Amino acid sequence: MTDSWVNSAERIGADLHLELSGPGGRRAALTRALREAVRSGRLAPDTRLPPYRSLAADLGIARNTVADAYAELVAEGWLTARQGSGTRVAAGVAPPPGRRRRDLPAPVPEKAAPHAPGSPHTASHPSGSPHDLRQGTPDASSFPRAAWLASYRRALQQAPNEAFGPGDPAGRVELREALAEYLARARGVRVEPGRIVICSGFAHALRLLFPRVLRGPLAVESYGLGFHRELLADASVRTVPLPLDEDGARVGELGRERAVLLTPAHQFPTGGPLHAERRAAVIDWARARDGVILEDDYDGEFRYDRRPVGALQGLDPERVVHIGSVSKSLSPALRLGWMVLPERYVDAVLDVKGEREAWAGVPEQLALADFIDSGSYDRHVRRMRQRYRGRRDRLVTALAERAPHVEVTGIAAGLHAVLRLPPGTEGRAVEAAARRGVALDGLAGFRHPEAVMSAPDGLVVGYATPAEHAYGAALEALCGALPPG
Amino acid sequence: MTDSWVNSAERIGADLHLELSGPGGRRAALTRALREAVRSGRLAPDTRLPPYRSLAADLGIARNTVADAYAELVAEGWLTARQGSGTRVAAGVAPPPGRRRRDLPAPVPEKAAPHAPGSPHTASHPSGSPHDLRQGTPDASSFPRAAWLASYRRALQQAPNEAFGPGDPAGRVELREALAEYLARARGVRVEPGRIVICSGFAHALRLLFPRVLRGPLAVESYGLGFHRELLADASVRTVPLPLDEDGARVGELGRERAVLLTPAHQFPTGGPLHAERRAAVIDWARARDGVILEDDYDGEFRYDRRPVGALQGLDPERVVHIGSVSKSLSPALRLGWMVLPERYVDAVLDVKGEREAWAGVPEQLALADFIDSGSYDRHVRRMRQRYRGRRDRLVTALAERAPHVEVTGIAAGLHAVLRLPPGTEGRAVEAAARRGVALDGLAGFRHPEAVMSAPDGLVVGYATPAEHAYGAALEALCGALPPG
Repeated sequence: MTDSWVNSAERIGADLHLELSGPGGRRAALTRALREAVRSGRLAPDTRLPPYRSLAADLGIARNTVADAYAELVAEGWLTARQGSGTRVAAGVAPPPGRRRRDLPAPVPEKAAPHAPGSPHTASHPSGSPHDLRQGTPDASSFPRAAWLASYRRALQQAPNEAFGPGDPAGRVELREALAEYLARARGVRVEPGRIVICSGFAHALRLLFPRVLRGPLAVESYGLGFHRELLADASVRTVPLPLDEDGARVGELGRERAVLLTPAHQFPTGGPLHAERRAAVIDWARARDGVILEDDYDGEFRYDRRPVGALQGLDPERVVHIGSVSKSLSPALRLGWMVLPERYVDAVLDVKGEREAWAGVPEQLALADFIDSGSYDRHVRRMRQRYRGRRDRLVTALAERAPHVEVTGIAAGLHAVLRLPPGTEGRAVEAAARRGVALDGLAGFRHPEAVMSAPDGLVVGYATPAEHAYGAALEALCGALPPG
Repeated sequence: MTDSWVNSAERIGADLHLELSGPGGRRAALTRALREAVRSGRLAPDTRLPPYRSLAADLGIARNTVADAYAELVAEGWLTARQGSGTRVAAGVAPPPGRRRRDLPAPVPEKAAPHAPGSPHTASHPSGSPHDLRQGTPDASSFPRAAWLASYRRALQQAPNEAFGPGDPAGRVELREALAEYLARARGVRVEPGRIVICSGFAHALRLLFPRVLRGPLAVESYGLGFHRELLADASVRTVPLPLDEDGARVGELGRERAVLLTPAHQFPTGGPLHAERRAAVIDWARARDGVILEDDYDGEFRYDRRPVGALQGLDPERVVHIGSVSKSLSPALRLGWMVLPERYVDAVLDVKGEREAWAGVPEQLALADFIDSGSYDRHVRRMRQRYRGRRDRLVTALAERAPHVEVTGIAAGLHAVLRLPPGTEGRAVEAAARRGVALDGLAGFRHPEAVMSAPDGLVVGYATPAEHAYGAALEALCGALPPG
């Protein structure tokens, strides 16, 4: 067992230790150890297990060994595996809090349904009324079906024939023109369509850049999405954590890296904007070091209490790669994003993409262009901003009434807030929430494994994901799970 | 100069030699050598230059050096650069056939428009009436807009809310169910929805498989798409060419590889199906060696003169990865394809895709499901099969009348035919066609660089790409460009 896995508190209880010993091979030992962890309650119901790859790497065993052990435990009914939701501890197999069922008989096997339909966010929840307060996705029930369909229809009717042939890897010019106008107006991006490359989202942008256009090491914020770090690691890019404080990333501590990935408008997940002096400082750094800044503008449209924070890119378009998508503003199901590139990277990125568009569907590119040009995008963003602001206010009010000792931060913008907790209580709070059917993440899961800054305890509460009618019950369940003051 | 570049006849005249000598650095020497090659006519108008990466590798110089040299020659007007079409020799700069203009003045610079809209297939053609007879894409003017829009509307109206949240990396179950039914019925694939993974097309399928699910070396047919070989090379997968004969790939000569990529229904590009005995033999090979066969079923629906050739996958679903897409049957602009996987690879491929759908747009997945379920897909394929059969017949008739000495092969199926040419005439025929405004490829461009089989001369004529009204003129121009009998 290495520490890196033990500390992945978003996935698995922070106090879990697996002993791979006893008779049989590694597979048998791992199966036994996991079964015992579930049986004893050390792994709570609905706890998500690490992906095969991560656990295999942490234990120094083959990925197939992990896969086989999981599969056996799914067949036995201890775990459930549902596509999109990963492998989790099954409902109803752990002891109630306070006692350990050492001799629990194996439960009735649940039919494994690896590709079952249904929301990946809710499919494997143990309770009948799951509450999804994980960050990262907008309210799927608010997708503007009628307006989107109108744009898609106009796009399909007006498209020239060549739109149905092989596509330009830069993306449709109609969309790049619409985005150039929108990003300049709404986000202060300095751009012409020729420097925009359409992609499938932020992760795709990272894949296009690394390792063939940019090389590591890449400085990153000490807290961020583990998924991005894994993707970079897969591309053999070393990430180096930058400490954070109340003014955002401490860019003055950039080392020998020539590239840094930031969330300047709204640090993810801790929630503040990068201070104006630091914005200027990191631009100076990039100019002096011939460096480049990747700006993840993941929720820049959703700002509630203050003047919008413009894109960092506006300070120096030749030093910043500005990356955005519709995943938070509209839907992650569309798989549409964009990169605004310094001139010198455009050809190289297109070279990586290939001679033809291999990723983003052209009719939906044209539909998004129409959606922006017709004003539907602005209307939708305004509507959702109102709605999310209302949810944030309800969260803050509920906490003030029910858990006044819990500080809530990062609420000026975005689709999530952070609840600060007393030291040492985060893991238990995540587990308590899970027992009440609330899925959410602790801060620890977002921490870079090599981070050296202090490690505050906290819960990341995504308030955008539930449908409007389900939000009140989710808040109620959350408040009930918080540690007493 | 290495031979590999000299022999890339699809890109550049086979007799070109570049001497990087004289004053200045490598950039100046390369610029000078390329300028002279264009000026002297050794590089004909519209000849496509190799990508930066390829030429840089072949010459052993930096990619930026090649990029700079190209950029300079674009600025001078010798070359044109248009996105999606690569860098080409500009129109009007070469001498007429038969003489060399040693002292041609530099032409008026043409404005470089790297991201101009317009069809990548026609944008850089020198003549006012370009004819695109390159293989690989269906008639873009035949996209069934009304039927597709009807399916998209129904899909959007009927989708559950969760469809607009994060997607399942396996793809929507509605689409996998529709495909399972369709592929079983139309292609003889043995499949249930749980073994289908949706992807963006064949190239994406290769990226998902290599190198993280399967490892090289990978046996491939001696003739195939260079784009696929490059993609595999980028993934550090060595490809080993299998000889072809009139019965298709000589699978009895498989060496120590454990994986082979085949086009069993219609060898690409030479045109025949894999003989029944070889189909059986390669399945036997896979079983005996614990190997796997990748079946590229790129145009399996378009069979004209004989009983359909079923998918190889039907012989042993646990030994064949069956890969298809709508790129030939409907449009490459949709970026939708599928893999039918042996059970043992499903989890590994999904693991590579990640926890959420990162590529294929969900509304269009649902639209395709409706398009198949409603019968629109069958109707469209039947209509296009009729149309392409008519075009093939017109090609055969025109050749019989105008060039009876040219043998045409590979016409029982697909969207292209191969015209066999006398030895040593292929390069000149491609150039002659280009002078008449006909874009097509010679066989040499599809040949694996390490192939040891004989190298027949031939032209690959894609008859699907032109719009219906433009096809007659394209045929006329083609016949005029063929070598005399």
